[in-house]
Amino acid sequence: MNPNVGMRPEDEGHMRRCLELAERGAGSVSPNPMVGSVIVHDGRVIGEGWHQKYGGPHAEPHAIASVEDEALLRQSTLYVNLEPCSHHGKTPPCADLIVEKCIPRVVVGCLDPHKKVAGKGIARLREAGVEVTVGVLEAESERLNEAFMTSHRKGRPFVALKTAQTLDGRIATSLGASKWITGEASRCEVHRLRCAYDAVLCGASTALADDAELTVRFCAGRQPLRVLLDPRLQVPHEFRIFNDAAKTLVFALRDEAEPVLVSQLEARGVEVVLIGQSEGTLDLAQVFAELHRRRVLSVMVEGGSRLSAAMVRSGIVDKYYVFIAPKLFGDDGLPSFGPLDVIRPDMATKLSFTRVERFGEDLLVEAYPVR
Amino acid sequence: MNPNVGMRPEDEGHMRRCLELAERGAGSVSPNPMVGSVIVHDGRVIGEGWHQKYGGPHAEPHAIASVEDEALLRQSTLYVNLEPCSHHGKTPPCADLIVEKCIPRVVVGCLDPHKKVAGKGIARLREAGVEVTVGVLEAESERLNEAFMTSHRKGRPFVALKTAQTLDGRIATSLGASKWITGEASRCEVHRLRCAYDAVLCGASTALADDAELTVRFCAGRQPLRVLLDPRLQVPHEFRIFNDAAKTLVFALRDEAEPVLVSQLEARGVEVVLIGQSEGTLDLAQVFAELHRRRVLSVMVEGGSRLSAAMVRSGIVDKYYVFIAPKLFGDDGLPSFGPLDVIRPDMATKLSFTRVERFGEDLLVEAYPVR
Repeated sequence: MNPNVGMRPEDEGHMRRCLELAERGAGSVSPNPMVGSVIVHDGRVIGEGWHQKYGGPHAEPHAIASVEDEALLRQSTLYVNLEPCSHHGKTPPCADLIVEKCIPRVVVGCLDPHKKVAGKGIARLREAGVEVTVGVLEAESERLNEAFMTSHRKGRPFVALKTAQTLDGRIATSLGASKWITGEASRCEVHRLRCAYDAVLCGASTALADDAELTVRFCAGRQPLRVLLDPRLQVPHEFRIFNDAAKTLVFALRDEAEPVLVSQLEARGVEVVLIGQSEGTLDLAQVFAELHRRRVLSVMVEGGSRLSAAMVRSGIVDKYYVFIAPKLFGDDGLPSFGPLDVIRPDMATKLSFTRVERFGEDLLVEAYPVR
Repeated sequence: MNPNVGMRPEDEGHMRRCLELAERGAGSVSPNPMVGSVIVHDGRVIGEGWHQKYGGPHAEPHAIASVEDEALLRQSTLYVNLEPCSHHGKTPPCADLIVEKCIPRVVVGCLDPHKKVAGKGIARLREAGVEVTVGVLEAESERLNEAFMTSHRKGRPFVALKTAQTLDGRIATSLGASKWITGEASRCEVHRLRCAYDAVLCGASTALADDAELTVRFCAGRQPLRVLLDPRLQVPHEFRIFNDAAKTLVFALRDEAEPVLVSQLEARGVEVVLIGQSEGTLDLAQVFAELHRRRVLSVMVEGGSRLSAAMVRSGIVDKYYVFIAPKLFGDDGLPSFGPLDVIRPDMATKLSFTRVERFGEDLLVEAYPVR
């Protein structure tokens, strides 16, 4: 959509406020999106609201309810970062409420990709004579709910890949030692990132090498689902990834996982999903399809060399978090990414750096793939 | 020195101005240091000066000459980022001038490591009854003249190592293609960096693979000396590193360089220095000793995998410039650093990140070794 149609100079500022309000729902609205709403009368903000909790009211009814003099709604603009819903879900349609309150103008950040909305909310408003401007801070609105957007558009979870490497791209020394490459501040940030994802995933070699627990310990927040890719069930059941601190889901190969090992894990309360293979190992597409089926909107993969490379080759990575420690291990160290079959530079996986932040002595480089 | 002795609250601000003024001499004072000076009377700046050109007056006489009412000097403070000189060089000693002008207080950023000064300037002032405060913005003062400091302290040039790599630490694809990993903005910055160094150095494989010219083309500035490490004189003399755009110095192995190849290069006006070996290749210590003998204060090494690793292993790198392109090449690509024999993480070369800057789509990470 052309973001300039009907846009007014003040729109961006109010939309930015919507995004701020929306973020307050982080960690408590998933699998719903984060949404904030602002109501402006004659240049003055008269109402604000945000979606606070999964299952609770959306941002728009909150904002409308916060307006003291309801009569002013008839000359106001309602801002919201996501298209108002048009269907009866856990709450009545917000588009109907807006029409009912005779709000004459609505400014929307981005469309809702949910197949029950997807433009129908806008259409409902326009049919009722509401002036609708769409696409104000569209990129920011999309990014705020990137997991929600990806999940609905692609029918699979939003997938982030996290690595922690030296400046020269190594995740372990020549003897496999990897604890700890990055510092404490980075490890805390990893825990904060885990909180923001529905699931955290690693391969058997990471679970074995580091006895990784994959839980949130250094900050307050929900425990994401732990997902272990262990084709032949090689991780012994006394390893920390199977402890009681969080739920664990294991993917193993249907043809190669020993039934007795499956039973042992299940006896510990660990769910094992047996799937087919692709190129001799677990088919990643099947893994993410199964997670999607379980309403996992977002997954952070904490990859070793092989898994990270497999993720990149599969083209499924939506976002990269690369922690860089101020160290050099040299070429005899374990590489952050295994072979990618890049022969010419133009065949490389292209990224776009979106953020660089210091955590203690380390850097966190955030990047998105350029498709 | 304890930076707090005799320090006053206003000192840092005036010293910062000295550093600003000093930087104006960048590129025209080497092998002298960059020095700026400010004279303050009763809280008001009454004079400023900086060392403008190698062989010309130092910062202090410039600052003193800029003061309109010379009588005020008797109640003023003179700030200077480097210890005033006490010896007769190309100009008379600045310490004597300060005493002669009866300036009662001098604030110094850091000591001058030049063996003819090294504390004697301060001593001269104190003997004459001048109050001297040393160590205001000491780290910044040292860093501004890091090449000068290193050259005098260590008896070898300041050595920076520049690499241009992908996010996963690769400088070429599996087939060796490396042109171009980083973008145009990074390449321009490399040219600006070259200007700031007395010499730029590369190995034979870089000269051969990229036909690197190692000159300054994308910005105005002096051409640094080109230094090529070519143990067996394998780079053909028609390669660009030998063109007329700048002077080139070649280091080759005394026992292995063919005399006829030496003659051919010399016929092109290229100087060849034959030195001994260490572990089968050129002895880096001899290379840098020879450059020091030639009054080369600073060298930027543009290393390939092998040279970069050899530099790190030799412990001679004073500063790192790592350009990171938003790409992944994977483990089949050529690594930025060859083997470093790091077995345990604590054996890694430890760095400290001092600056991260974007150049186009790339990042430049600047780092110093932590000794």
